[in-house]
Amino acid sequence: MAERIYLDWNATAPLREEARVATAEALGLCGNPSSVHAEGRAARARIEAAREKVAALLGAQPRNVVFTSGGTEANATALCPSWGAGEADDSRDGLVLSAIEHPSVLAAGRFSRSLIELVPVTPDGVLDLSALEQVLSKLAGQGRRRLMVSVMLANNETGVVQPVSKAAELVHGRGFLLHVDAVQAAGRIPCNINELQADVLSVSGHKIGAPKGVGALVKREEKLHLSDPLIRGGGQERGLRAGTENVAAIAGFGAAAAAAQKALAAESARMAGLRDRLEAGLKSRMPQAVIFGAGASRLPNTTLFAVPGIRAETAVIALDLEGIAVSSGAACSSGKVQPSHVLAAMRVEPSLAQGAIRISLGPSTSESEVDRFLDAWIRLSNALVRETDGIAA
Amino acid sequence: MAERIYLDWNATAPLREEARVATAEALGLCGNPSSVHAEGRAARARIEAAREKVAALLGAQPRNVVFTSGGTEANATALCPSWGAGEADDSRDGLVLSAIEHPSVLAAGRFSRSLIELVPVTPDGVLDLSALEQVLSKLAGQGRRRLMVSVMLANNETGVVQPVSKAAELVHGRGFLLHVDAVQAAGRIPCNINELQADVLSVSGHKIGAPKGVGALVKREEKLHLSDPLIRGGGQERGLRAGTENVAAIAGFGAAAAAAQKALAAESARMAGLRDRLEAGLKSRMPQAVIFGAGASRLPNTTLFAVPGIRAETAVIALDLEGIAVSSGAACSSGKVQPSHVLAAMRVEPSLAQGAIRISLGPSTSESEVDRFLDAWIRLSNALVRETDGIAA
Repeated sequence: MAERIYLDWNATAPLREEARVATAEALGLCGNPSSVHAEGRAARARIEAAREKVAALLGAQPRNVVFTSGGTEANATALCPSWGAGEADDSRDGLVLSAIEHPSVLAAGRFSRSLIELVPVTPDGVLDLSALEQVLSKLAGQGRRRLMVSVMLANNETGVVQPVSKAAELVHGRGFLLHVDAVQAAGRIPCNINELQADVLSVSGHKIGAPKGVGALVKREEKLHLSDPLIRGGGQERGLRAGTENVAAIAGFGAAAAAAQKALAAESARMAGLRDRLEAGLKSRMPQAVIFGAGASRLPNTTLFAVPGIRAETAVIALDLEGIAVSSGAACSSGKVQPSHVLAAMRVEPSLAQGAIRISLGPSTSESEVDRFLDAWIRLSNALVRETDGIAA
Repeated sequence: MAERIYLDWNATAPLREEARVATAEALGLCGNPSSVHAEGRAARARIEAAREKVAALLGAQPRNVVFTSGGTEANATALCPSWGAGEADDSRDGLVLSAIEHPSVLAAGRFSRSLIELVPVTPDGVLDLSALEQVLSKLAGQGRRRLMVSVMLANNETGVVQPVSKAAELVHGRGFLLHVDAVQAAGRIPCNINELQADVLSVSGHKIGAPKGVGALVKREEKLHLSDPLIRGGGQERGLRAGTENVAAIAGFGAAAAAAQKALAAESARMAGLRDRLEAGLKSRMPQAVIFGAGASRLPNTTLFAVPGIRAETAVIALDLEGIAVSSGAACSSGKVQPSHVLAAMRVEPSLAQGAIRISLGPSTSESEVDRFLDAWIRLSNALVRETDGIAA
């Protein structure tokens, strides 16, 4: 039997070898990083070494990196009214989100529902900057002075890269605060917190080849302060995240970040080549296929497409039986079959959106895997279209 | 050079071999447990197998186990007003804590400061049940009808086991809700959620030999519902904890829980024997040593003691240089040198409390390690007392 083909790297990436080694080593350390004895100091040293590597990937200062249990916790921590520079009246008075944010951002952290505004995207899945400006202007006109805005760097479903630096200009022009969910972008495209001008940024380890269970919340400037952390108790992570640190996964995150940073240009170019091969093959053999966000700047590894008449759920299962793992959209929640809010925001017809298949590649994806996917897809989709016709008839 | 001696198991336990194997295996799985393909299902299967094992250790139903990133997150999630059985007006209207709870419980989760009452302990470090009854009665008299009460099963500093079942009777007698922080007790003494009559219970993986970065929040009854989870977004963990699951650490937690459950009686008896040997040796060679909570029921592995005239910080460093890892108290927060709130609640003189050394044993601690500790302690402490005298003179 042929080896399975994993084309669902946006859901989670296989562990990088560097991360496996670092994680296994750190699992062997028995100290609690808060202990003052040698065992504790050894565990602490692994964390601080990893902090430097994660910071380097994002162009941040190590002291501004706060390790969390993942991207979702980083987002939940970030989306909090209590960010400020120490002034008395520094509570954020509203939250503005793009309509295509990840569910963990749309959940809005500790902002109450009534304080949230959504900004639409273009049909290509790009944040509408003039709409953002209008929303900010409207809210400022209503007296809001300390808004928080959250814009993702790359969408997890379409891979569309968002105009974060331009959004930052609008947000900072009014003295507001910008959070950037960089979970899908980090390690795949340059993601420098200073170039992006993000005030706070969220990243996840397992999307770049670290173990699951680790992420980070990163600040651009040390003086920006979160006065009400989500998880409180001990003084870990400069008081911003209590709980014994996940030493092994943090060590793996550091190793994965360093590996991803080193290989970024090469891996990115290679994945883009494979992605283009996949899309060209798809369009030539099945011209009716629609590639979402094709006109926008996208991550090098992501293709979201649909073929009229084919339902994604059926297709994902059929491909799985052929030994190919792909996704019918975001894989972040359990057992939910519901239309993509991202495609709805892009005003894609619901019947077409139901057919959206996400192919996401990784550094170890090969040309032959792409070709095997294409062959299987053409074969299966012909059957699936007929099946659907049969059901409709 | 002699091998180092690790006597700080309450800070964190070395990884159990069963957990190392299960964690390493699960690290090799690349699927996201929320994905429907084979890779996703394989990851999901590891989580569900671990859930059964953690549930078995606690006498709970697997469906009532919610995996978190650790004990601190479990406590932060548990301490929330929004527990109920679905009625409209089910928000908890106050939080009652013992004065010796872990800092992550004293941080009180999402209860506002004004809603918190502390209950004192006896000089032996045991929750004062009549004081608990008085506090509950007083608050009920003030019209509070839906209090939450949190009592730890065993104190992390003294090891004193708390009268949880008796507290549960008082709490349930008034229709209130009981949360139990069982982080230090699980795997060391029987910890059955039904026998304890805890409504919600927190446990941590790394205290029983799983990797750091995993814990669980456990409910006794499925119908008890948390309507406002701490970390929201995806539908993972039945909607109670969003974020891609830490598959590897969860698998390790399951393996550690099964191993701990199997060996509980034997390990517990063995550790108690070593602990008694340590305490007898200490008292015979240094009669002025004070063992805190000695008159109470304690965990089999924990001794907290002080010798008048010796400061714990100095002693911990001196022991570390001798190759012995012990703690000067709770190791859960970073770089903080502050008097123990537990000993203060036990009304221990501050000058004596500053000398508190915690020795915590584990399943692999040997008799010779205990004896080597005793020899080193007697030798060092004589020097440390003289040094302290010198400074005082």
